[in-house]
Amino acid sequence: MSKKINVLVWNEYADDQKNPAVANVYPKGMHITIADFLNNNPDIQAKTAVLADEEQGLSDAVLDNTDVLIWWGHIAHDKVEDKTVKRIIDRVQRGMGSIFLHSAHKSKPFMALMGTSGHLCWREAAEKERIWITSPAHPIAEGIPEQFVLEHEEMYGEPFGIPQPLQTVFIGWFQGGNVFRSGVTFQREYGRIFYFQPGHETFPIYHNEIIQKIIVNAVKWAKPIVKVNSLDCPNVPPLENL
Amino acid sequence: MSKKINVLVWNEYADDQKNPAVANVYPKGMHITIADFLNNNPDIQAKTAVLADEEQGLSDAVLDNTDVLIWWGHIAHDKVEDKTVKRIIDRVQRGMGSIFLHSAHKSKPFMALMGTSGHLCWREAAEKERIWITSPAHPIAEGIPEQFVLEHEEMYGEPFGIPQPLQTVFIGWFQGGNVFRSGVTFQREYGRIFYFQPGHETFPIYHNEIIQKIIVNAVKWAKPIVKVNSLDCPNVPPLENL
Amino acid sequence: MSKKINVLVWNEYADDQKNPAVANVYPKGMHITIADFLNNNPDIQAKTAVLADEEQGLSDAVLDNTDVLIWWGHIAHDKVEDKTVKRIIDRVQRGMGSIFLHSAHKSKPFMALMGTSGHLCWREAAEKERIWITSPAHPIAEGIPEQFVLEHEEMYGEPFGIPQPLQTVFIGWFQGGNVFRSGVTFQREYGRIFYFQPGHETFPIYHNEIIQKIIVNAVKWAKPIVKVNSLDCPNVPPLENL
Amino acid sequence: MSKKINVLVWNEYADDQKNPAVANVYPKGMHITIADFLNNNPDIQAKTAVLADEEQGLSDAVLDNTDVLIWWGHIAHDKVEDKTVKRIIDRVQRGMGSIFLHSAHKSKPFMALMGTSGHLCWREAAEKERIWITSPAHPIAEGIPEQFVLEHEEMYGEPFGIPQPLQTVFIGWFQGGNVFRSGVTFQREYGRIFYFQPGHETFPIYHNEIIQKIIVNAVKWAKPIVKVNSLDCPNVPPLENL
Repeated sequence: MSKKINVLVWNEYADDQKNPAVANVYPKGMHITIADFLNNNPDIQAKTAVLADEEQGLSDAVLDNTDVLIWWGHIAHDKVEDKTVKRIIDRVQRGMGSIFLHSAHKSKPFMALMGTSGHLCWREAAEKERIWITSPAHPIAEGIPEQFVLEHEEMYGEPFGIPQPLQTVFIGWFQGGNVFRSGVTFQREYGRIFYFQPGHETFPIYHNEIIQKIIVNAVKWAKPIVKVNSLDCPNVPPLENL
Repeated sequence: MSKKINVLVWNEYADDQKNPAVANVYPKGMHITIADFLNNNPDIQAKTAVLADEEQGLSDAVLDNTDVLIWWGHIAHDKVEDKTVKRIIDRVQRGMGSIFLHSAHKSKPFMALMGTSGHLCWREAAEKERIWITSPAHPIAEGIPEQFVLEHEEMYGEPFGIPQPLQTVFIGWFQGGNVFRSGVTFQREYGRIFYFQPGHETFPIYHNEIIQKIIVNAVKWAKPIVKVNSLDCPNVPPLENL
Repeated sequence: MSKKINVLVWNEYADDQKNPAVANVYPKGMHITIADFLNNNPDIQAKTAVLADEEQGLSDAVLDNTDVLIWWGHIAHDKVEDKTVKRIIDRVQRGMGSIFLHSAHKSKPFMALMGTSGHLCWREAAEKERIWITSPAHPIAEGIPEQFVLEHEEMYGEPFGIPQPLQTVFIGWFQGGNVFRSGVTFQREYGRIFYFQPGHETFPIYHNEIIQKIIVNAVKWAKPIVKVNSLDCPNVPPLENL
Repeated sequence: MSKKINVLVWNEYADDQKNPAVANVYPKGMHITIADFLNNNPDIQAKTAVLADEEQGLSDAVLDNTDVLIWWGHIAHDKVEDKTVKRIIDRVQRGMGSIFLHSAHKSKPFMALMGTSGHLCWREAAEKERIWITSPAHPIAEGIPEQFVLEHEEMYGEPFGIPQPLQTVFIGWFQGGNVFRSGVTFQREYGRIFYFQPGHETFPIYHNEIIQKIIVNAVKWAKPIVKVNSLDCPNVPPLENL
């Protein structure tokens, strides 16, 4: 396919991300790091947007040109306006793919798409995580080793408040004794959704080549099969005699 | 189990339901008809609430005492306030069962729990529907014949904008050439959800004994296994040495 | 991807298929008709095999070169040897895609992969079927109209003895009052599986362009993401200190 | 419901289980230990059978009186005859519940019901396992703590060769760095199925009260909603005019 997949990497990019602890790892912001490695792939064209942008970076015009939305948010979830959320949900339902990273489990769009609270338990101890593939033939796992290690990661643990996934692609093992469904897929009408747990802002997770490969795979998997203009409820005539 | 299941049958009960076309079929409102047949079951205690009630009939005090919520709405979906929806969603996620009847596919709580638009096609032609069991061993189908007929029903047709169900219990055949996943189950954290298509307000659907049996079965299936007080995200210590 | 998908179209091709009622519709056998339209697609290379071939057409050498197996069987299910079935199942589990057409619901490989009996009800009355899309964004439904008609089809009706599908892509409406999950997907370890109901041998179903498009789509969807050589249970050392 | 659930606890009970390493933990065999704690529950009546019994302990007469079959096998999987397997599969499809414990992942009936190989990785190092609830509102998890520890367990690790479960109830964390979907549910036509990983024969797993509670819960969950006599494919007349 010659047409590139248009990705929008959205980041709340709140002030905490400009502090040295984060900025040392992601000098221009995580969204730029993510967009950069995506743009190394010939099939992908990635742009970025942040909360401070006009219309929170998610205007109709921007979304019109987005095939897959990648979401990063953490401390500013509440600042995303309900009308912004409504625009996103509508786009996903009509075919836009979406990838929710790490702390996006508590973002408004993710919770609205899931119908759940996204609750989990967590711990910031820079502990080791091992991520295991549980669906080795899933396109998102293509080319990924059976298991790999993140030396320092924030712990996210079960029980995780999500609907039963379409497929559970990855499960994480944490040094401190916890487990987590780290990569899970969903579909909401025309739109495919992938939640992926790795990614704390003070660790170089998005510089990791395996993580990058998974996100590239996820973009390709989540790209729209078809987009529709509306999801109305038409009054239709009978097809057979009544 | 000696404790009865506390059911709340909620109806928007807008003015159209007081017009003769509806009132001839449901003189006191559909909520009363439904509550009455539920109360014939020794394991169930059903109450009712309507949109015009204080706090739209869904105060914290009322919800505190509800195990399973049954929802009927059609022309007044938009009148349900967002804060009411929020209370309902929170309760479902924490364990309250819910049953969405017929036109509740476009109700705010249903769409919020699904993350989808609930789109479908429809036709008001009083045509015949045959409902087939597709999961004959599901508790909601217990004691129900393999197929049964509703002589006059509003048509609801595929494609139906819902997530892939946990189980598809019923599929409807319509005289005019359409099909519909008429009975489908979901779970959102602690809460079980059943959507059931039959029930147009001008037809005596809820006087049909098979329909009544299905709704009784659904109440028993949807009753909480456990209810929790909150779905927070606790910061937890390690269980193993780091 | 430049490499073509290697498809094997297998047909029991028992004597009944050489009788005029079938041979008038499929002069060289259904397998040839199916392989021919598949070979019109530049991404696919299709071969055929029949029950009378050496090793029932499914030797290790043949399977080594098969990415997606298409199965047609009806009256000779019992003639497929258990060792042949075993070879097929093993290949599916290790990554080969498979598409089971019409009466293959009672074939040994399909039942073995499902763990179910594939029971259904049926009627040979050349009645009308309407096939509705229920997962419009599924790759198998790409480019397919919302519903289409088969003027004369054998009826297959619910309840259908299959596990809950990964996704229900199509549901069929039959003139005589029945419904059927006509297109359903499954996965068994590395292998993707699609069951597709249309296809009675005395009707020109496989000459229908929409049916052909669906089968082409299914081949592309079912092609292996990865194939593995074995599914053993290795004894592994600890990754962490015990 | 006054009628008790008839459980059959089947154990291959091969010679290795009579060696001191096992017999010290389960003097009369694991099947007796399991049946004993089940029989402490007023709703359950448990009997036992072993491979050496007539018809391998699984005659039609025995299965006629079984609501839920519990399976333990390890080194004698191949000794279970295909005709025995066939009888079991047929019963599950027609409504008998089944619970497969630990090494039953490679038993013939489990693989036949799943359509998969049940492959996994393993290690016998008496390491610690923590089992986490991932579906806290599932009936099988009722009354079970959010996580609990087995001090010494054989490791079973992902990737686990099973179909996508209906629900993933438990995930296990192992000290040596592995994770495993330790409790998963399936349905095959009328029969509910639970696979549960804990249970190595040299550890007192089945003496653990939490494990016992989970197995009791699973028996209650898996008991038949309805049993049918056959799963044939009837030729049926049209319900509507053709």
